[in-house]
Amino acid sequence: MYVVIVYDVAVERVNKVKKFLRRHLHWVQNSVFEGEVTLAEYERIKVGLRKLIDEDHDAVIIYRLRSMPPRETLGVEKNPIEDTI
Amino acid sequence: MYVVIVYDVAVERVNKVKKFLRRHLHWVQNSVFEGEVTLAEYERIKVGLRKLIDEDHDAVIIYRLRSMPPRETLGVEKNPIEDTI
Repeated sequence: MYVVIVYDVAVERVNKVKKFLRRHLHWVQNSVFEGEVTLAEYERIKVGLRKLIDEDHDAVIIYRLRSMPPRETLGVEKNPIEDTI
Repeated sequence: MYVVIVYDVAVERVNKVKKFLRRHLHWVQNSVFEGEVTLAEYERIKVGLRKLIDEDHDAVIIYRLRSMPPRETLGVEKNPIEDTI
Protein backbone atom coordinates (compact mmCIF):
# COMPACT_ATOMS: atom_id res chain seq x y z
CA MET A 1 0.00 0.00 0.00
CA TYR A 2 1.10 3.56 -0.65
CA VAL A 3 0.42 6.28 1.90
CA VAL A 4 0.48 10.06 1.76
CA ILE A 5 0.53 11.58 5.23
CA VAL A 6 -0.24 15.23 5.90
CA TYR A 7 0.01 16.59 9.42
CA ASP A 8 -0.84 19.76 11.25
CA VAL A 9 0.98 19.37 14.55
CA ALA A 10 1.84 22.03 17.14
CA VAL A 11 5.38 23.37 16.91
CA GLU A 12 6.46 21.79 20.19
CA ARG A 13 5.71 18.31 18.85
CA VAL A 14 6.39 18.66 15.16
CA ASN A 15 10.06 17.74 15.21
CA LYS A 16 9.40 14.43 16.90
CA VAL A 17 6.68 13.64 14.37
CA LYS A 18 8.97 14.55 11.49
CA LYS A 19 11.84 12.48 12.86
CA PHE A 20 9.55 9.49 13.37
CA LEU A 21 8.01 9.67 9.89
CA ARG A 22 11.43 10.08 8.34
CA ARG A 23 12.32 6.59 9.58
CA HIS A 24 9.43 5.10 7.64
CA LEU A 25 8.63 7.37 4.72
CA HIS A 26 9.93 9.86 2.23
CA TRP A 27 9.66 13.55 3.12
CA VAL A 28 8.24 15.43 0.16
CA GLN A 29 7.34 18.86 1.43
CA ASN A 30 6.60 20.77 4.61
CA SER A 31 4.17 18.57 6.62
CA VAL A 32 3.91 15.90 3.92
CA PHE A 33 5.45 12.45 3.83
CA GLU A 34 4.71 9.56 1.52
CA GLY A 35 5.86 6.10 0.64
CA GLU A 36 5.16 2.43 0.06
CA VAL A 37 4.43 0.54 3.26
CA THR A 38 3.40 -2.94 4.27
CA LEU A 39 0.25 -3.35 6.33
CA ALA A 40 2.45 -4.00 9.39
CA GLU A 41 4.41 -0.79 8.79
CA TYR A 42 1.19 1.11 8.31
CA GLU A 43 -0.05 -0.08 11.68
CA ARG A 44 3.26 0.76 13.33
CA ILE A 45 3.16 4.25 11.86
CA LYS A 46 -0.31 4.82 13.26
CA VAL A 47 0.65 3.55 16.71
CA GLY A 48 3.81 5.69 16.68
CA LEU A 49 1.99 8.83 15.58
CA ARG A 50 -0.70 8.39 18.23
CA LYS A 51 2.03 8.35 20.87
CA LEU A 52 3.65 11.51 19.57
CA ILE A 53 0.71 13.76 18.81
CA ASP A 54 -1.82 15.39 21.11
CA GLU A 55 -5.04 13.92 19.77
CA ASP A 56 -7.03 16.84 21.16
CA HIS A 57 -5.06 19.42 19.21
CA ASP A 58 -3.05 17.95 16.35
CA ALA A 59 -4.41 16.60 13.09
CA VAL A 60 -2.98 13.90 10.86
CA ILE A 61 -4.55 12.53 7.70
CA ILE A 62 -3.26 9.32 6.17
CA TYR A 63 -4.43 8.79 2.60
CA ARG A 64 -4.31 5.12 1.67
CA LEU A 65 -3.62 4.47 -1.99
CA ARG A 66 -2.83 1.38 -4.00
CA SER A 67 0.32 2.80 -5.52
CA MET A 68 2.23 6.03 -5.95
CA PRO A 69 -0.27 8.47 -7.43
CA PRO A 70 0.43 10.71 -10.41
CA ARG A 71 1.14 14.24 -9.28
CA GLU A 72 1.87 17.62 -10.71
CA THR A 73 4.26 19.96 -8.97
CA LEU A 74 4.00 23.73 -9.29
CA GLY A 75 6.86 25.90 -8.17
CA VAL A 76 9.76 24.39 -6.30
CA GLU A 77 10.06 20.65 -5.92
CA LYS A 78 11.38 20.46 -2.38
CA ASN A 79 12.39 16.85 -2.42
CA PRO A 80 11.66 15.10 -5.71
CA ILE A 81 10.35 11.62 -5.04
CA GLU A 82 11.99 10.25 -8.18
CA ASP A 83 15.41 10.71 -6.59
CA THR A 84 14.86 8.08 -3.98
CA ILE A 85 12.81 5.39 -5.65
CA MET B 1 -10.93 13.28 -11.28
CA TYR B 2 -10.23 13.75 -7.59
CA VAL B 3 -7.38 15.97 -6.45
CA VAL B 4 -5.57 16.42 -3.17
CA ILE B 5 -3.53 19.62 -3.14
CA VAL B 6 -0.83 20.31 -0.56
CA TYR B 7 1.00 23.61 -0.61
CA ASP B 8 3.93 25.21 1.09
CA VAL B 9 3.58 28.87 0.26
CA ALA B 10 5.23 31.89 1.90
CA VAL B 11 3.08 33.66 4.46
CA GLU B 12 2.68 36.79 2.32
CA ARG B 13 1.00 34.77 -0.44
CA VAL B 14 -0.74 32.03 1.48
CA ASN B 15 -4.05 33.80 2.06
CA LYS B 16 -4.57 34.42 -1.62
CA VAL B 17 -3.82 30.79 -2.40
CA LYS B 18 -6.21 29.62 0.30
CA LYS B 19 -8.96 31.95 -0.88
CA PHE B 20 -8.50 30.81 -4.48
CA LEU B 21 -8.55 27.11 -3.62
CA ARG B 22 -11.59 27.55 -1.41
CA ARG B 23 -13.53 28.57 -4.51
CA HIS B 24 -12.81 25.24 -6.16
CA LEU B 25 -12.11 22.68 -3.48
CA HIS B 26 -12.80 21.57 0.06
CA TRP B 27 -10.41 22.72 2.76
CA VAL B 28 -9.47 19.74 4.90
CA GLN B 29 -6.56 20.86 6.99
CA ASN B 30 -3.81 23.46 7.21
CA SER B 31 -2.29 23.63 3.69
CA VAL B 32 -4.46 20.82 2.30
CA PHE B 33 -7.43 21.03 -0.03
CA GLU B 34 -9.19 18.28 -1.91
CA GLY B 35 -12.16 17.61 -4.10
CA GLU B 36 -13.69 16.26 -7.27
CA VAL B 37 -12.88 18.34 -10.33
CA THR B 38 -13.46 18.19 -14.05
CA LEU B 39 -10.45 18.30 -16.35
CA ALA B 40 -11.33 21.91 -17.19
CA GLU B 41 -11.46 22.86 -13.51
CA TYR B 42 -8.17 21.08 -12.92
CA GLU B 43 -6.54 23.16 -15.63
CA ARG B 44 -8.09 26.36 -14.28
CA ILE B 45 -6.78 25.55 -10.81
CA LYS B 46 -3.26 25.06 -12.14
CA VAL B 47 -3.36 28.30 -14.12
CA GLY B 48 -4.72 30.19 -11.11
CA LEU B 49 -2.14 28.77 -8.71
CA ARG B 50 0.71 29.60 -11.07
CA LYS B 51 -0.42 33.21 -11.05
CA LEU B 52 -0.57 33.39 -7.26
CA ILE B 53 2.57 31.57 -6.17
CA ASP B 54 6.20 32.48 -6.58
CA GLU B 55 7.47 29.52 -8.57
CA ASP B 56 11.01 30.08 -7.33
CA HIS B 57 10.06 29.80 -3.68
CA ASP B 58 6.68 28.17 -3.13
CA ALA B 59 5.81 24.53 -3.60
CA VAL B 60 2.50 22.96 -4.54
CA ILE B 61 1.82 19.29 -5.14
CA ILE B 62 -1.38 18.17 -6.82
CA TYR B 63 -2.09 14.47 -6.41
CA ARG B 64 -4.39 13.22 -9.16
CA LEU B 65 -6.63 10.37 -8.10
CA ARG B 66 -9.57 8.62 -9.71
CA SER B 67 -11.86 9.12 -6.76
CA MET B 68 -11.87 10.17 -3.12
CA PRO B 69 -9.25 7.99 -1.46
CA PRO B 70 -9.79 6.14 1.80
CA ARG B 71 -8.12 7.96 4.65
CA GLU B 72 -7.52 7.58 8.33
CA THR B 73 -7.55 10.61 10.58
CA LEU B 74 -5.56 10.73 13.81
CA GLY B 75 -6.25 13.44 16.34
CA VAL B 76 -8.57 16.27 15.46
CA GLU B 77 -10.54 16.24 12.23
CA LYS B 78 -10.32 19.90 11.32
CA ASN B 79 -12.94 19.87 8.62
CA PRO B 80 -14.47 16.45 8.06
CA ILE B 81 -14.96 15.87 4.36
CA GLU B 82 -18.12 13.82 4.94
CA ASP B 83 -19.95 16.95 6.08
CA THR B 84 -19.85 18.55 2.69
CA ILE B 85 -20.27 15.73 0.20
